Amino acid sequence: MSSEHASKKLAAGVIRNDREMSDGRTIRYYDTHGQTRNAPDLRPKEDQPGIGEIRLDSLVNEWVAMAPHRQTRIFLPPKELCPLCPTTGELLTEIPEATYDVVVFDNRSPSLRPPDGPWKLPQSLGPETPIVPAAGICEVVCYTPEHGNSFGDLSQSQVRTVLEAWRDRTAELSEQEFIEQIFPFENRGEEVGVTLTHPHGQIYAYSYLPSRVERMLAAAKLHKERTGRVLFDDLLAREIKDEVRIVAQNEHWIAFVPYAARYPFEIHVTPRKPVADLTELSLEVCDAFPSISLEVLKRLDGVFGIPMAYIAAWHQAPVRQGRDLLRLHWQITSVRRAPGKLKYLAGSESAMGAFIMDMRPEQSAQQLRDVVLGK
Amino acid sequence: MSSEHASKKLAAGVIRNDREMSDGRTIRYYDTHGQTRNAPDLRPKEDQPGIGEIRLDSLVNEWVAMAPHRQTRIFLPPKELCPLCPTTGELLTEIPEATYDVVVFDNRSPSLRPPDGPWKLPQSLGPETPIVPAAGICEVVCYTPEHGNSFGDLSQSQVRTVLEAWRDRTAELSEQEFIEQIFPFENRGEEVGVTLTHPHGQIYAYSYLPSRVERMLAAAKLHKERTGRVLFDDLLAREIKDEVRIVAQNEHWIAFVPYAARYPFEIHVTPRKPVADLTELSLEVCDAFPSISLEVLKRLDGVFGIPMAYIAAWHQAPVRQGRDLLRLHWQITSVRRAPGKLKYLAGSESAMGAFIMDMRPEQSAQQLRDVVLGK
Repeated sequence: MSSEHASKKLAAGVIRNDREMSDGRTIRYYDTHGQTRNAPDLRPKEDQPGIGEIRLDSLVNEWVAMAPHRQTRIFLPPKELCPLCPTTGELLTEIPEATYDVVVFDNRSPSLRPPDGPWKLPQSLGPETPIVPAAGICEVVCYTPEHGNSFGDLSQSQVRTVLEAWRDRTAELSEQEFIEQIFPFENRGEEVGVTLTHPHGQIYAYSYLPSRVERMLAAAKLHKERTGRVLFDDLLAREIKDEVRIVAQNEHWIAFVPYAARYPFEIHVTPRKPVADLTELSLEVCDAFPSISLEVLKRLDGVFGIPMAYIAAWHQAPVRQGRDLLRLHWQITSVRRAPGKLKYLAGSESAMGAFIMDMRPEQSAQQLRDVVLGK
Repeated sequence: MSSEHASKKLAAGVIRNDREMSDGRTIRYYDTHGQTRNAPDLRPKEDQPGIGEIRLDSLVNEWVAMAPHRQTRIFLPPKELCPLCPTTGELLTEIPEATYDVVVFDNRSPSLRPPDGPWKLPQSLGPETPIVPAAGICEVVCYTPEHGNSFGDLSQSQVRTVLEAWRDRTAELSEQEFIEQIFPFENRGEEVGVTLTHPHGQIYAYSYLPSRVERMLAAAKLHKERTGRVLFDDLLAREIKDEVRIVAQNEHWIAFVPYAARYPFEIHVTPRKPVADLTELSLEVCDAFPSISLEVLKRLDGVFGIPMAYIAAWHQAPVRQGRDLLRLHWQITSVRRAPGKLKYLAGSESAMGAFIMDMRPEQSAQQLRDVVLGK
């Protein structure tokens, strides 16, 4: 995907260096101290898994990706076998260097892969819609070489580098003509199915609009037609006006439990000046992200005094449509409703899509605000 | 809701007897042997929890129910404290009788409750949509007095009684003018959040169309406009033609893994002659349900030789619209993808609504067919 030994200057003093992995995948080092990244990947060459398929679930007209090769992927290895640690001892990991700041590399077991040739999503939707290759790109983002840490333990400057990596990936992936939606996210905790505990996130770049994006787009279109305004901006204005659900804020960002939250703890973090995606954030706004993101995650872990399982999801406008209708926001959801209790997506949520919340958003916002932050 | 000591003859020799519980709720005994059901509920009167609220999540125009009083509900009690066992010893349970066949009673911690007075769902959707009371009805269906059994252990005649109870509840709940959708379902296994292990299901009767029903309705309308045909019928025809995903069948029912399944194990069980809901099934078709439902659940438990966690969901046409567009089917989904591994709804599924399957439906259908059934 990228030429070997390419080097690129990004914002906030971040330099990106690309290297080829032994099986042809690319690893990108995002560094802030002019490090040299020449360690070769000494692992034997390995065949790449084939591309999966996407099928239309015509009952609801949504695409479902099938990636049967993922069934055998590595599952909760012990620390000494962690493939996301730097290569320091005998074990040759995904990262050939002996340390790193932030790296992004192509996923070894990707659900979605770049198509071999020209590729087009079938436009007509119905039972006759053919199966097509599962086009897309899946990447892994390692936040830190420290195995035992988590995103919330990062320094502000580390978070700033991660943000720069997300922005760079969004910009570059947007140039691929088969990509429709770019989704950086993090699953944290075994409760949400994490198979590797090393602090890391992922990026899924889809060749189709995911169901939730389609629904957000439909709601935003309707609102624009009715009012001439952007839906998200009106919802943000309500949060600011209502005040009771705000959890944290600074000059450029605001974090709140949304009015109709679906999870025991759900926080939306959004820039005060709305943008379509990460690439549109000004440098000033980027520089103000580390403090609010770290505060929000510390508040989340502080509610019960235990590390909270969460899904942290960047909602961005799609690459090729709705750019003026959907807004960037970072959605953090946690299924933990009490120290020993999780919220499960059972019958009502899973089969009907009808969410039942066990507490009001105002209550969880209060709990998050009440956390006393150390340091 | 029902007058005390009402008695009603249903199909398949089932008699329903209603009794009032000490706190005013109704318990309905569905019996096949002319049992007398006069045991009084000796528990002290208890205040009923208040009604919750529903809020519109305008980002996607979906209703979210808030039921804060449910946070303290009973959680995995030991067998000797099980509230769904008959009342035999010291413990006064939800069922005053010393045994029962099948009972249905009003949920003690309902997410949705009948409204106090006239009630109407706001029609215009947007950020200005008001919060309204969480109208609806939640009931509990106990399948058997045997605490350690499961649905799959029931006799054919017990399943027939359960089916008659579901049919009766669907008919009666449909008469409530604030009800839009009736959803009998079962969550089985701690993996899907079951808080009581006694074999039981639930019925949620919603005052609004759940999100998935809305999406099924939209897809069915589109298909009808394009082809003049009912979408589900075309999908069923494809399953019969493709054959590879069929798991079980008899003269009146067919069970298959759907073409675009989203879960490691997902089975749809549907009558060959399509109907809108349970009340429209002919007696002949009802009588053929126990054998296929038991076969399907035995196959599911047989795949890995362990009891499988599942959600079993009755999809019915809504009460007041789309009666000729949506079809009755029983959807069973399991998140278990291997003996020690679950599928989690993580970032892609949960935040984007983009499902990624680790195996093809044809593979799980084969595994289900390969199970050797005992007896």
